Amino acid sequence: MTSHENITAAILLIGNELLSGRTQDKNVAFIARHLKECGIPLLEVRMIPDKEDAIIHHVNFLSKAYTYLFTTGGIGSTHDDITTASIAKCFGCELVLNQEILDILKEHYGNLLNENRKRFAYIPSDVSALIPNPISMVPSYQIRNVFVFAGMPSIMQEMFLSIKDRLKKGPQIKSQEIKTNLLEGDIADQLASIQALFPEVDIGSYPYYNEHEKGTHFVATSANPEKLKEAFEAIEAMCKEKKAVCQKIS
Amino acid sequence: MTSHENITAAILLIGNELLSGRTQDKNVAFIARHLKECGIPLLEVRMIPDKEDAIIHHVNFLSKAYTYLFTTGGIGSTHDDITTASIAKCFGCELVLNQEILDILKEHYGNLLNENRKRFAYIPSDVSALIPNPISMVPSYQIRNVFVFAGMPSIMQEMFLSIKDRLKKGPQIKSQEIKTNLLEGDIADQLASIQALFPEVDIGSYPYYNEHEKGTHFVATSANPEKLKEAFEAIEAMCKEKKAVCQKIS
Repeated sequence: MTSHENITAAILLIGNELLSGRTQDKNVAFIARHLKECGIPLLEVRMIPDKEDAIIHHVNFLSKAYTYLFTTGGIGSTHDDITTASIAKCFGCELVLNQEILDILKEHYGNLLNENRKRFAYIPSDVSALIPNPISMVPSYQIRNVFVFAGMPSIMQEMFLSIKDRLKKGPQIKSQEIKTNLLEGDIADQLASIQALFPEVDIGSYPYYNEHEKGTHFVATSANPEKLKEAFEAIEAMCKEKKAVCQKIS
Repeated sequence: MTSHENITAAILLIGNELLSGRTQDKNVAFIARHLKECGIPLLEVRMIPDKEDAIIHHVNFLSKAYTYLFTTGGIGSTHDDITTASIAKCFGCELVLNQEILDILKEHYGNLLNENRKRFAYIPSDVSALIPNPISMVPSYQIRNVFVFAGMPSIMQEMFLSIKDRLKKGPQIKSQEIKTNLLEGDIADQLASIQALFPEVDIGSYPYYNEHEKGTHFVATSANPEKLKEAFEAIEAMCKEKKAVCQKIS
């Protein structure tokens, strides 16, 4: 990694419950917002079932394609939790007993530590670091450039925050957003002209409709603070010219 | 397609706002639940930015790998809406004026129909059918096995419901769910034995923790109603043996 600008990330969500619609994912938005703070563009997310061949294929592909891969889900103690065994296979290593995890399990579970729970202590031999878990105590782990997280949002969030300092940081990406009562069709040409003037800035246009109101949010995003300011001022000038009702969001 | 069992689906979510964490996706769970009703397993979801090369690559791959592909996002009238142009490129066809859409636009917008809004009427030449949009009126379209939807959930949902009848149906997949105060580590071995007895049934185990309670939800899912009933009864018997506090969810 010779340049900050090359730092990238992907997320792999693992879980039948997501693909059946039983469970609404809440992990992507959390990780995405924190990666943005770190200056790390999130370029791709995939959601796959708890199937060994799928996990192996996508972990292998995404860990090679991006600087960091974050996985969520499939690390519990039941038969449907196959993420750890699949990742070990993916990287051609064995599951080995980790004494540090076993000690945590002994301390946490005491007499309730049975064979089911001891499964947590077997992790891939190539693991480079553990990831603490202050909620249900069982640590997860980092292997190469892959951070393996629990699927439950409360646990996943603590795990992410505990490894955030390990990530190489890129130039910070900032956004400015304004809510307006303009309709996209009335300003698309002008907005395109502003975008053309500021190639370093990503300008997004997001309409909203509800019973009471309709309009468009404009979001300017850039790692270049001066260009971001200029582009946002150009958007504000367009809104003023159109006599729009506006509200800055950030 | 010679067998029901081969009908599969994928979703491609297109939008910088999802990958930046600005917008929480709500489309996957909706589509997933309806596909389940249709007996169509959703096997993969990908989330990518509004980038032409990414859209072309993933539409091409996913439309070949699965029976149906549903895309969301990037079909508005501003410069950042590049889904339609990218899909045309993906399938090697031109954008052509669709008279039916133009007529809808004329009727809906009247004097407000400008060049920005006329963009909506240019769709890929290979489009096989339009998809109505009762919310903001501008139709979307189906091209080959790809259904192109808006990103805004209210519009996307209406679009999905209007094409649901076009989908080939598979054997209906049903689930039964029970909430318990059992902990995974106390029943993982027994649950694995039940799963082994019922290979036609997918048994998922989903722990929950909050300030007030902890426990596990068990979900049995199958296209075989008799095996589903038997497997769920085996789970209930396990809960009874463990003297668990239980609540059937469905």
